[in-house]
Amino acid sequence: MSDLTVYGTMISQPTRSVLSFCRLSGLEFQYNDLDFIKRNHCTDEFAKINPFQAMPAIVHNSFNVWESVSCVMYLADVFNVDNQWYPKDLKIRARINSYLLWHDEGVRIPLDSYLKAKYLVPKFGGPKLTEETEAPYKDKLQEWYNTFKWQLAETHYAGRTDTPTIADVFAYNEIANASVLMDLNEQPEIKKWYDEIGAIPVVQEYTQQAFEMMRKFFS
Amino acid sequence: MSDLTVYGTMISQPTRSVLSFCRLSGLEFQYNDLDFIKRNHCTDEFAKINPFQAMPAIVHNSFNVWESVSCVMYLADVFNVDNQWYPKDLKIRARINSYLLWHDEGVRIPLDSYLKAKYLVPKFGGPKLTEETEAPYKDKLQEWYNTFKWQLAETHYAGRTDTPTIADVFAYNEIANASVLMDLNEQPEIKKWYDEIGAIPVVQEYTQQAFEMMRKFFS
Repeated sequence: MSDLTVYGTMISQPTRSVLSFCRLSGLEFQYNDLDFIKRNHCTDEFAKINPFQAMPAIVHNSFNVWESVSCVMYLADVFNVDNQWYPKDLKIRARINSYLLWHDEGVRIPLDSYLKAKYLVPKFGGPKLTEETEAPYKDKLQEWYNTFKWQLAETHYAGRTDTPTIADVFAYNEIANASVLMDLNEQPEIKKWYDEIGAIPVVQEYTQQAFEMMRKFFS
Repeated sequence: MSDLTVYGTMISQPTRSVLSFCRLSGLEFQYNDLDFIKRNHCTDEFAKINPFQAMPAIVHNSFNVWESVSCVMYLADVFNVDNQWYPKDLKIRARINSYLLWHDEGVRIPLDSYLKAKYLVPKFGGPKLTEETEAPYKDKLQEWYNTFKWQLAETHYAGRTDTPTIADVFAYNEIANASVLMDLNEQPEIKKWYDEIGAIPVVQEYTQQAFEMMRKFFS
């Protein structure tokens, strides 16, 4: 048994990003799949691992870390990671970190809030979006296309780096969950990048598991 | 002349956090004060330093970094910082990073959005808040009191660390700008922490400069 455990659910975008980072960095770990439908993350026990009771979180030698990006930073330090995905080169790492600090505001919030309003809220008995209530989300999605195209324009990668990094994996996982909201064929610059990152074997494997889980959950 | 320049404006909370980090860590730097009223950050020249044209940003030996937390992380790495404010101890650093990754969502957005709506939008000719349009902001401020009290409850510090760190400085600077919105005497747990962090000499010095700037700007 490894001294590292990742807690999460495959449907959670940041869970898949942390799991992908572990696999891409060759870290040994076990994955503790919390059944989010049974609300296994809302227990007092899990609050001891992540006081916010959000997924993912990690435990390494009985030390707990939460916030997905903070988990990646801790793992990189403690396991001395220096690879393409999160190199020790301070300049490349700074570019990746600047992306990761912008990721929530720039990618996760605009996409995930639309996704929740359109699919998750009605699934749990809340109101369905109407043409009128959906319009502001659609407008923000249009704005987001432009923002993200601009973000990719410099080097073709989310962190403005010369090769794909963990920044792209974080971005990809958000867009994969939200892909049901968009036709990426209409956004060729994003589509080209999306297909490239989605073809990274471990990213592809986790995405397929997530899509399967979403199909079951929403069917 | 130092090989490090910090670009920003004293009224900007994250600018003061990066400046404080430099001072608390004994880094030599020059401060390039961008006059935000003249929109000196909205130039093509500044876009080469921060593509988002937001403050602060740093240039170190002709390498530019943006996003305040990413600036702190880069500076800590490149200048080998290991002090109370951002120790190399991986566990303490993980706690600080988990706070810093939550800071925007947990502190900056709820406070700064109210501040902008109440003071900045009318200052630039936009609509004044009415009792009705201010109510949701007031409700969110009440929620925020509880969230932040909970955040401090574990160890009395924002990063759930045993001593004050840069996490507290980031939190303090947001609350200082927003202090005009609240009576902290009604929030004694927050007030005690606020007074302690605000008494750190360099934090106090920058806060006084910010308050002076705000007084002139809004008078």
